[in-house]
Amino acid sequence: LNERLSDLGEFGLIERIALLAPAGREIVGIGDDAAVLPGPPGMYTLATVDMQVEDVHFRLDDRSPGEIGATALAVNISDIAAMGGEPRFALLSLAARPEMATRTIEEVVAGICNLATRFRMGLVGGNLTRTSGPLCIDITVLGDVPCGEILLRSGAQEGDLLAVTGTLGGRAAMRLARDAGIDGVPSIPVPEPRVNVARRLAMAGILHAMMDISDGLAGDIMHLAEASSVGAIVDADLIPAAPLAVEFARRLGTSAVDLALGGGEDYELLIALPRTVLEEARALGDAVGLTVIGEVVGADRGLTLRNGTRTRPLVGGWRHF
Amino acid sequence: LNERLSDLGEFGLIERIALLAPAGREIVGIGDDAAVLPGPPGMYTLATVDMQVEDVHFRLDDRSPGEIGATALAVNISDIAAMGGEPRFALLSLAARPEMATRTIEEVVAGICNLATRFRMGLVGGNLTRTSGPLCIDITVLGDVPCGEILLRSGAQEGDLLAVTGTLGGRAAMRLARDAGIDGVPSIPVPEPRVNVARRLAMAGILHAMMDISDGLAGDIMHLAEASSVGAIVDADLIPAAPLAVEFARRLGTSAVDLALGGGEDYELLIALPRTVLEEARALGDAVGLTVIGEVVGADRGLTLRNGTRTRPLVGGWRHF
Repeated sequence: LNERLSDLGEFGLIERIALLAPAGREIVGIGDDAAVLPGPPGMYTLATVDMQVEDVHFRLDDRSPGEIGATALAVNISDIAAMGGEPRFALLSLAARPEMATRTIEEVVAGICNLATRFRMGLVGGNLTRTSGPLCIDITVLGDVPCGEILLRSGAQEGDLLAVTGTLGGRAAMRLARDAGIDGVPSIPVPEPRVNVARRLAMAGILHAMMDISDGLAGDIMHLAEASSVGAIVDADLIPAAPLAVEFARRLGTSAVDLALGGGEDYELLIALPRTVLEEARALGDAVGLTVIGEVVGADRGLTLRNGTRTRPLVGGWRHF
Repeated sequence: LNERLSDLGEFGLIERIALLAPAGREIVGIGDDAAVLPGPPGMYTLATVDMQVEDVHFRLDDRSPGEIGATALAVNISDIAAMGGEPRFALLSLAARPEMATRTIEEVVAGICNLATRFRMGLVGGNLTRTSGPLCIDITVLGDVPCGEILLRSGAQEGDLLAVTGTLGGRAAMRLARDAGIDGVPSIPVPEPRVNVARRLAMAGILHAMMDISDGLAGDIMHLAEASSVGAIVDADLIPAAPLAVEFARRLGTSAVDLALGGGEDYELLIALPRTVLEEARALGDAVGLTVIGEVVGADRGLTLRNGTRTRPLVGGWRHF
């Protein structure tokens, strides 16, 4: 009765909302990286939204306003990429304090516009309001994908390989190292949404499932496994930890693998694919690298991290409340 | 250089953003009630977003959480209706304080879900985050409209009549009267988006332009006139002031007409139509009432309010910063 949001947590609340949410004409609603809706002839429309809040997701004294804006857009583009789609349109809601400098807000918007331009997207709508609190940047991105090329979280099958693009844990290492006051930490770059490699993989039609890695590898594998009703075994030795995760792990009192598993904010792709197409997928993913990290097993075998001969349960994810 | 948002104002900032915004494949971008995008065969997809902030748009001690949620959805549905469309899907972003009661947030969401259900919409995506500041409810609504039935702000022509649905100024009167501590003010109801009458008018294909009245009649006529490159003359005597605007105007030190012109939050429809179709439009608008309030004139004649033999410029609109 007196339960607080901090007791329930973000994912607990999302589960309750998903139970309440009415269904309409959508093909896929809550639960994947983006909603799948009826689209132009032969296409699905994809829709996703993400809110970034000052002092939760970014600090104004830590990054340029342009990078903050671009990042808020990039994480949404990443969700469209994760479905195999192309981002097309963005809508922007901003809540800002009246005493904020116009220039700061214009630079946030310019960062959004520059990244949108690079992906040939239109910024087609928006909404500005005042607030007495933190700057809130909420961006909706709409995209599309040919109906035959869409990739969901729910398609992973027992026997599939699990693979990831790029390297993991670098952004988490930077964020934690900066928070810890460690000297010489580079500023956290704007994520590079994997639209090109995701589109190539989707067009090839060889994958079973795809999603982006935003909550940390362990939590995201859990989401993929739940959506697909499967289990997974991940090899710690195979996880491609980012160089910065390796560099800062010891000073942060953790390991590079744990930064990759629990850190989040990677915006790389997690895919499930049949063993038979691995070489083809590797060739398509060449530009960013595609690394096998484990395999899909039956749901009864749960989620396991294997480290040499030892195993432990996979856990993690970013807790918002 | 040291300009603050409060110096520039909401519409000033929107104008600057509209200049920066890149164009993509949209049919209509920033500047109408909703963006117009390629849609399912024979249809346009419509997209709009609106953020409601605690202590700016609502107070938690003033209205039930369910009404707050429903209102945040209703204002977006109204934007879809204003294009002649049907609302189909909603995406929800919420920023909430960790110490807030789970029940409050669940009631906000239930209010959204109940209204979405009534309009047979799907709640297809969302995003929850913590904040240290006011509760922020940002809702994106997607809708669709047959390509031949869409109504824009930009179609008004010299010689058209201007008309509105329903009555105006009632919600503004209630808000101001409650803020002034006047006793016996009813609580402000959730707006009723005019989807049905707007769809009937759009299907009939007889209107030149339509928009919803959210910023106050005067400001919204200005937006319609700017989009259509026309002027307007409005008769003060013809404006259908809401009974509550009449009831509270004197105690608020204003007039019912000024509440209708400047108050905002009506979510009625403003239309421009040829004189020849007025009776047909009246019949279609029967359920909510359709009142002629003035006429469209050349842009060179500007925007005028006529009160008997006197005239004054139309002004107003809600200033967010």
